[in-house]
Amino acid sequence: MKLTILIHCPDQAGIIRSVTTFIHQQEGNIVYLDQHVDKQAGVFFMRLQSEFEKELPLDTFKKEFQNELANQFQMEWEVYLDGYKPKMAVFVSKYNHCLYDLLSRYNSGELSVDIPFILSNHKDLEYVAEQFNIPFYHVPVTKQNKAEAEDRQLALLQEHRVDFVVLARYMQIVSPKVINVYPQKIINIHHSFLPAFMGAKPYHAAFERGVKIIGATSHYVTADLDAGPIIEQDVAAVSHTHSVNDFIAKGRDLERIVLSRAVQLHVARKTMVYNNKTVIFS
Amino acid sequence: MKLTILIHCPDQAGIIRSVTTFIHQQEGNIVYLDQHVDKQAGVFFMRLQSEFEKELPLDTFKKEFQNELANQFQMEWEVYLDGYKPKMAVFVSKYNHCLYDLLSRYNSGELSVDIPFILSNHKDLEYVAEQFNIPFYHVPVTKQNKAEAEDRQLALLQEHRVDFVVLARYMQIVSPKVINVYPQKIINIHHSFLPAFMGAKPYHAAFERGVKIIGATSHYVTADLDAGPIIEQDVAAVSHTHSVNDFIAKGRDLERIVLSRAVQLHVARKTMVYNNKTVIFS
Amino acid sequence: MKLTILIHCPDQAGIIRSVTTFIHQQEGNIVYLDQHVDKQAGVFFMRLQSEFEKELPLDTFKKEFQNELANQFQMEWEVYLDGYKPKMAVFVSKYNHCLYDLLSRYNSGELSVDIPFILSNHKDLEYVAEQFNIPFYHVPVTKQNKAEAEDRQLALLQEHRVDFVVLARYMQIVSPKVINVYPQKIINIHHSFLPAFMGAKPYHAAFERGVKIIGATSHYVTADLDAGPIIEQDVAAVSHTHSVNDFIAKGRDLERIVLSRAVQLHVARKTMVYNNKTVIFS
Amino acid sequence: MKLTILIHCPDQAGIIRSVTTFIHQQEGNIVYLDQHVDKQAGVFFMRLQSEFEKELPLDTFKKEFQNELANQFQMEWEVYLDGYKPKMAVFVSKYNHCLYDLLSRYNSGELSVDIPFILSNHKDLEYVAEQFNIPFYHVPVTKQNKAEAEDRQLALLQEHRVDFVVLARYMQIVSPKVINVYPQKIINIHHSFLPAFMGAKPYHAAFERGVKIIGATSHYVTADLDAGPIIEQDVAAVSHTHSVNDFIAKGRDLERIVLSRAVQLHVARKTMVYNNKTVIFS
Repeated sequence: MKLTILIHCPDQAGIIRSVTTFIHQQEGNIVYLDQHVDKQAGVFFMRLQSEFEKELPLDTFKKEFQNELANQFQMEWEVYLDGYKPKMAVFVSKYNHCLYDLLSRYNSGELSVDIPFILSNHKDLEYVAEQFNIPFYHVPVTKQNKAEAEDRQLALLQEHRVDFVVLARYMQIVSPKVINVYPQKIINIHHSFLPAFMGAKPYHAAFERGVKIIGATSHYVTADLDAGPIIEQDVAAVSHTHSVNDFIAKGRDLERIVLSRAVQLHVARKTMVYNNKTVIFS
Repeated sequence: MKLTILIHCPDQAGIIRSVTTFIHQQEGNIVYLDQHVDKQAGVFFMRLQSEFEKELPLDTFKKEFQNELANQFQMEWEVYLDGYKPKMAVFVSKYNHCLYDLLSRYNSGELSVDIPFILSNHKDLEYVAEQFNIPFYHVPVTKQNKAEAEDRQLALLQEHRVDFVVLARYMQIVSPKVINVYPQKIINIHHSFLPAFMGAKPYHAAFERGVKIIGATSHYVTADLDAGPIIEQDVAAVSHTHSVNDFIAKGRDLERIVLSRAVQLHVARKTMVYNNKTVIFS
Repeated sequence: MKLTILIHCPDQAGIIRSVTTFIHQQEGNIVYLDQHVDKQAGVFFMRLQSEFEKELPLDTFKKEFQNELANQFQMEWEVYLDGYKPKMAVFVSKYNHCLYDLLSRYNSGELSVDIPFILSNHKDLEYVAEQFNIPFYHVPVTKQNKAEAEDRQLALLQEHRVDFVVLARYMQIVSPKVINVYPQKIINIHHSFLPAFMGAKPYHAAFERGVKIIGATSHYVTADLDAGPIIEQDVAAVSHTHSVNDFIAKGRDLERIVLSRAVQLHVARKTMVYNNKTVIFS
Repeated sequence: MKLTILIHCPDQAGIIRSVTTFIHQQEGNIVYLDQHVDKQAGVFFMRLQSEFEKELPLDTFKKEFQNELANQFQMEWEVYLDGYKPKMAVFVSKYNHCLYDLLSRYNSGELSVDIPFILSNHKDLEYVAEQFNIPFYHVPVTKQNKAEAEDRQLALLQEHRVDFVVLARYMQIVSPKVINVYPQKIINIHHSFLPAFMGAKPYHAAFERGVKIIGATSHYVTADLDAGPIIEQDVAAVSHTHSVNDFIAKGRDLERIVLSRAVQLHVARKTMVYNNKTVIFS
């Protein structure tokens, strides 16, 4: 049995020793430990993986960890059993490049998730879902029906016990009604190097400004548009020889790779959020 | 004799043929030609280098180029005689890393300029000027004396027949009074990936936002703060493990390299400005 | 009508002027011109695009270009009519990541080719071909049958009038028998930063050496294994925390992107080969 | 008082718990802990920093750590007292770019070392040493006098109690006589992306091969030329438009930055060597 534990708590002396001693008492062997202290905020973060020769009841482990450690150090913490494949829903609109990228990784086993469904406000990408034999739901969104559409989305997410949602160029603003049910569980890809060029048409804005580098940013969705905690960013060089369409074409490659890296980090439980920033463990 | 010619004019058929034919008539051999068309703006850009076996009087060449070509195509153009070392003034404040970088390149012959003087609003870096035997002028700038200080700067620039100015972390806003005398001749280094984090303290703002990549941008100075035509940008990865001071330290390397590349491009006559953007020839 | 012309010839005075004058005489308007001189080798390279208001018979154009220009300057040259989609065959083995990447770009129109067939020495990826409705040929290769297998490959390539071949992690050495029929028409992806780690198992070798950066290289296939003209390379940072399997996973992203960029450059007629090196036009 | 401890030992259960408990017993507070397990080799690596409110006699700490921990786990370990500035000798030949880079960082306090002397087999860079007021020793090296020259080098290193040596483009092969006295204490910069282009004239070889990316590598010097443990690598894009001299000029920037990063990592005690590879802590 292998557990991954994520902890954050007010920084103080003795946390690492206490946690490692607790794991030892449970007859676990620590195979990974990384920690970080945000000195400004006075917060301690830790990610720890431990193997146990004996099968422990997870509930017992959780209760003892809470009583013997978490209460004392005021820890917020989570534990994950190795081997569980999280259920990932994918929301798309009309662009297929990020969707194809995710599905080909899923298909080859590179991305260790289950995909209960793909959802879109348009029918354009239904054929891609069919290529990969994944259920597809068409939920149109208009100004008028936005509330009902989001009710439908929430119903589907809950019915399929979805763990997290990937907005693979979904192109719609997700309202707090949905975000609040999946805090730090909705991953978006924005097609600029945030915080530059927030909002719509970032490639056009980048072209207009005459930048020499474009970027893409994957972040957890919060109520503030394009302002959530950044998980991953990458960039590519451009020059005066590139048109807006060249920016868009180069950007597709950035979007693919940045989104898939962010999803991989989330699935591997390597991300923690604090103060609208992320800690990304190695 | 070798000439470098930079041209821009309204796009139309026949420009390349006309220019190459003109050079041929002057018994020149074209050793480099690069061109670019901004289709949105309808503007044609060209950089051409030609060798001439015979010495031509440059004035005659200019007059004939103007009469036979430039008038017909409404060209804005410039010609540079190979081998001339432009005179570069360096303005600094208290940080020495960009200054050292420029001076060590100058000293090793990597940067082909003359440096008539270094100017600063502080005395801190006078010792660096002395290390490299370059005149140093201390021109303090306060809210009260800004106009007189800029008069002093302009007098020095003109007395020394300076061709262009490098703001190597000068930390003062240069007013239009100076900019207008040296349009597209003042190169600044801004310590962020513009247009993100314009203005003061960009590393602090980047840290606050939790970005995963920081950058630096070199641009020609215009009346709009940090909004002039971008010459060069570069970036470096950062993570949650880096403090603001780590951002600043990593940023120093970006600033050094981005500023020196921009200066090299300017010195090599590879930059053209149009519509607040640059064309950077290869 | 729009033509793309690629030229190389011994360097000498007057080439650009002669070509642009010829295009003018044919009532063409040059919309792109880039040139390069390899001074060591004394060779001139040019890529030129021209629009013609009138439809010219391509045969007539070719004959006149040959007689009036190419003979005089000893040019090797090619001309391509805009809009023709080259026929690209894809050879694969068992890895699907490069294949999926190419097919999703093909499917979205990003990659402007026809794909008459996918060929493999294994049946593993037949299902991918089926997902995208592309014919799949299973041509097993063993030590014993290699000659016949390559005869079968050549027959398929010729029957389908294939223009170029992409080895998308084909894992078999292609013999001169095939290469000689498609010189500079077979594009391979090698999973290292060539010339480091030529041959088999480059990620294992890179891990063993303890490098901090891994790479991928796309090149035209020649009779010398992994030694053909390099079209495109890219790299990614690695560290001691990465296992060989992590190298392989990170490498997959490099392979995808480097191969697709090389294919795009080839399709756009932006590559020329000389002295086992490439000129890649902008 | 702050200590940095570096440990490696055979991997086994309980190491982290034992070390953190020991630190706790000494009334230390752990402010940084990073660990790594090389599963193939079965080796555990740890870097730990701890603050102590009370001043401990370092000798007592060392003895107790050895007796209570190191013996039990067969640890190889080192401890460093924070604030000590290591003494760094710089060996150069005729190129000044890496030397200027190191000295300007040293001068601005960015590089926290003492530099007792600069040594060269040529007199060319004596003036740089004078600019920065650092003693300069001219030790010519010829085939005939190599043994005596290295004796002189060793005498200088020992007389000045040098902690480590930086070969800032020294261009001479250092023999085992010197290396064996400073194992993993001599840092070299090689002007290629090792293991590609080992030995002399790597930029010429890279140009000949037609690579699209060049690199630089900093490594600890071992008896095998250019084959020691790699500390840091970086790369830059090149194209057919670049001559060998352009490769060399671009390479200078890589050499500067890669060497200075490696020196910074060494000074910060973030490097460990095992099996001819490095572990680089964050």
